[in-house]
Amino acid sequence: MTTSNNPINQQLLPTQRTQIKRLPKRGNYETQTIYNILDEALICHVGFIANNQPFVIPTAYGRVEDKLYIHGSPASRMLRTLTQGIEVCVTVTLLDGLVLARSAFHHSMNYRSVVIFGTANLVNDMEEKNAALQAFTEHVIPQRWKEIRQPNKQELQGTLVLSLLLNEASAKIRTGNPVDDEADYNLSVWAGVLPLQMVAGKAIDDERLIEGIEVPDYVQNYREARNL
Amino acid sequence: MTTSNNPINQQLLPTQRTQIKRLPKRGNYETQTIYNILDEALICHVGFIANNQPFVIPTAYGRVEDKLYIHGSPASRMLRTLTQGIEVCVTVTLLDGLVLARSAFHHSMNYRSVVIFGTANLVNDMEEKNAALQAFTEHVIPQRWKEIRQPNKQELQGTLVLSLLLNEASAKIRTGNPVDDEADYNLSVWAGVLPLQMVAGKAIDDERLIEGIEVPDYVQNYREARNL
Repeated sequence: MTTSNNPINQQLLPTQRTQIKRLPKRGNYETQTIYNILDEALICHVGFIANNQPFVIPTAYGRVEDKLYIHGSPASRMLRTLTQGIEVCVTVTLLDGLVLARSAFHHSMNYRSVVIFGTANLVNDMEEKNAALQAFTEHVIPQRWKEIRQPNKQELQGTLVLSLLLNEASAKIRTGNPVDDEADYNLSVWAGVLPLQMVAGKAIDDERLIEGIEVPDYVQNYREARNL
Repeated sequence: MTTSNNPINQQLLPTQRTQIKRLPKRGNYETQTIYNILDEALICHVGFIANNQPFVIPTAYGRVEDKLYIHGSPASRMLRTLTQGIEVCVTVTLLDGLVLARSAFHHSMNYRSVVIFGTANLVNDMEEKNAALQAFTEHVIPQRWKEIRQPNKQELQGTLVLSLLLNEASAKIRTGNPVDDEADYNLSVWAGVLPLQMVAGKAIDDERLIEGIEVPDYVQNYREARNL
């Protein structure tokens, strides 16, 4: 994969909007760090303004190089609003653990999040649209795309795809132990980190599945297939 | 717990903002359904407008009856902005599984989400503030509050707490199998649902933990302690 616009290890320039002001040492502007978080998470929260009102809508997404793609029905209020070229804020959050301190005050969470700003562009080119949908599927479940019936012309036309350039974004990351007040380290309270992780369970066959079709390996070993 | 303002099984009245327009059969306005989703999830995404720009920030939260509480440092840009009584949209999403159809077009996700609209109120009353912080801790990890050092006056004063009334909210839920085009049911493609779940790993002792303090049962058996 070429990354002509945002070579790996490049740093994005913090802007007024992306500069981490609160706890700046948690901020990170490396494209590779940002891409890794985007590639691991499964859903984003899209923020936009309609009628002077903020809306935050969860949706799936895909990434190709320095573009994030979201898609949906042309009947979606969110997508129709975004096609007007308005400002959007897309946030992706991975929760990695509970940080259990000795005092209530210092309880926290370990997390990795990305906040992206920009304006979404409607993807009209059928080839880019198809590539976006492929990225979308492969992002959620690698190796799936080649097995399934791919979109026909009617489905492609009936799907709205928006792209958002990943050139104004920042990551924020907390890791490690709780940080307690010095005096509290003497308290007889268990403290530490409880790691959290999104885990796949046992795949459930569709009730109309043709007899004899086995669960594919990339479904059975989902986290491994995603390199997690 | 009394729920005088929003008795269990009450239906919220859909408003212009909360009415589910896209796939309305997935919409749900029952307070109990909404509360269950809020109580199970660990983080919310808070959307607000500053400088004509949408922002979406992830944060933890707590619920007491028909109020959602968020909190943080008075230095937080988000919290300072919200104390101005501006419109806010808070979204909570639980991802329950991947819906793997026979065609790319019908791939989907099983999820439960809640979208709340309103304006946040600054909590000044110290008793309500303390109760909010307790709800906050007990929401994330039940049984923790009584074990830890609770907030002192200085910490309470140094914490900004905001409340949001849960009277304009809706849930959206997808469950079950993929729904494929009739012709595609003949394809030799595995289809079904891959359940996803947030799972706790093995607790990690803080490196300065006093020797001999064991991991509490409510940490060890986290999902059970949360009734999940």
